[in-house]
Amino acid sequence: MSLSIAHLGPPGTYAEQAAVLYVNWLNKTTGIAATLCPYPSIAQSLQAVATRETELAVVPVENSIEGSVTMTMDALWQLDSLRIQLALVMPIVHTLISCAPSLDHIQKVYSHPQALAQCQNWLGKILPTVQIIPNNSTTEALQLLQQDVTAAAIASSRAAQLYNLPILAQGINDYPENCTRFWVVSQNQPTSEYQINTLNPTHSSLAFSVPANIPGALIKPLQVFAELGINLSRIESRPTKRSLGEYVFFIDLETDITKPKMQSAIADLMGYIEILKIFGSYGVLSVNVVEA
Amino acid sequence: MSLSIAHLGPPGTYAEQAAVLYVNWLNKTTGIAATLCPYPSIAQSLQAVATRETELAVVPVENSIEGSVTMTMDALWQLDSLRIQLALVMPIVHTLISCAPSLDHIQKVYSHPQALAQCQNWLGKILPTVQIIPNNSTTEALQLLQQDVTAAAIASSRAAQLYNLPILAQGINDYPENCTRFWVVSQNQPTSEYQINTLNPTHSSLAFSVPANIPGALIKPLQVFAELGINLSRIESRPTKRSLGEYVFFIDLETDITKPKMQSAIADLMGYIEILKIFGSYGVLSVNVVEA
Repeated sequence: MSLSIAHLGPPGTYAEQAAVLYVNWLNKTTGIAATLCPYPSIAQSLQAVATRETELAVVPVENSIEGSVTMTMDALWQLDSLRIQLALVMPIVHTLISCAPSLDHIQKVYSHPQALAQCQNWLGKILPTVQIIPNNSTTEALQLLQQDVTAAAIASSRAAQLYNLPILAQGINDYPENCTRFWVVSQNQPTSEYQINTLNPTHSSLAFSVPANIPGALIKPLQVFAELGINLSRIESRPTKRSLGEYVFFIDLETDITKPKMQSAIADLMGYIEILKIFGSYGVLSVNVVEA
Repeated sequence: MSLSIAHLGPPGTYAEQAAVLYVNWLNKTTGIAATLCPYPSIAQSLQAVATRETELAVVPVENSIEGSVTMTMDALWQLDSLRIQLALVMPIVHTLISCAPSLDHIQKVYSHPQALAQCQNWLGKILPTVQIIPNNSTTEALQLLQQDVTAAAIASSRAAQLYNLPILAQGINDYPENCTRFWVVSQNQPTSEYQINTLNPTHSSLAFSVPANIPGALIKPLQVFAELGINLSRIESRPTKRSLGEYVFFIDLETDITKPKMQSAIADLMGYIEILKIFGSYGVLSVNVVEA
């Protein structure tokens, strides 16, 4: 028996690449084997864990250029039973894949909106007149490329290898320091006896809503952490979906939730917030793409 | 001569609808006429103002369900010379447009990713097996519908009228309280002598970056406003695009920037932040779709 891991498919996406790197690391450190299960959306990858179809999901959280992956945050808030086991930071290097003989022949470029956004300056300068076509994943359009030599897709070089397609340009992201943070997510009470996370927890993530229309409603919760010397590494707001101007705040903290200081912070926090959801504590693993 | 206004095109998008409602209001209150200029992206609409191709742009800022329009925030931060003149809040009612005789015949649904996300539960329940295809705007796919009766698009009922296409289902958004806030943006020093904003300013928007890796770096700026009793109506973080974990914070305040209290807040703020950009003060206009 091996662990099952959900990710955004089809194979060749950056989420699959992150899942492969996690599986390699897991296998090297614990000897556990795993099977990858592609899903058509990030929300469905997380739902697979919530309904115990798979034991884990690897989902993107945040990119250094395009920011938060809002779908991941919304699904975590809605699906009550999930816990973050590990964060993976992976460098992103976009390549232009096409069967065209040269760049001059390209008339349309397909990719996921995040990848298109991360290469927008390159596209504007090198291919200013092409049609830009968004897809549900970076790999969705790859099967079209052999039939249409005027088409190109932006994906990873690993995707080009997997689909046996030529690379026309490499490293086309506008900012070289492009990386994405992924979370490895399990059930709150995982059924598996496997040791899926062998890193010491250094970060914690939680989300809360505050009573609507109270001046300074966000200051009080942030002060709780500041006064205890707990550093925030990220704050993000998402709409509550009730009415414009009401938010859920997502916070990443540089501490382990089981520490007494953090337990005291959570007790204090309860006085200022409406709903609190704790997504757990986890270590951060930096992975290198060549390993995939 | 009339004012020129950039917006995300082609005609029939929600941005065009908001621009039409602004023009109607402007014409009613000041007698000024305006011409609408569609652009292929939100960033290009704002660039049109920055390069004085047009005098104004109407751009979406935030939706009550799907949250911030990150492209608008990133472009405002990058293009130094812009100022917000007015906020428009517009209810969003999505309709399913198709030449199919009934819902059973539909095999694919096209729209902008934001509109698809806002109808995802409805699509999952009513059309669970269809293919979901993202587009650059809600209106991009409308010209395909007459050739392909298995296709549908999610757009406004105004778009259906403009393109003379039948509506198969109305009000298909998952949350009835769905509205979008738009900003009417001009140059910092508009050349036009027109009085483009006749509402008293009640809100202000600004953005700042903080010195990286300083614990509690965000608390100090927020405390400045809290101590002066200035209420924040929104806070949003965007990556600086330098490295993962470095952010620009966008803040909306419930005050006019010219008030002495606000001037004092800005002076205090300078001690805690790195770069500050002030996008101006403006009134908020709630518009009704039937007027468009």
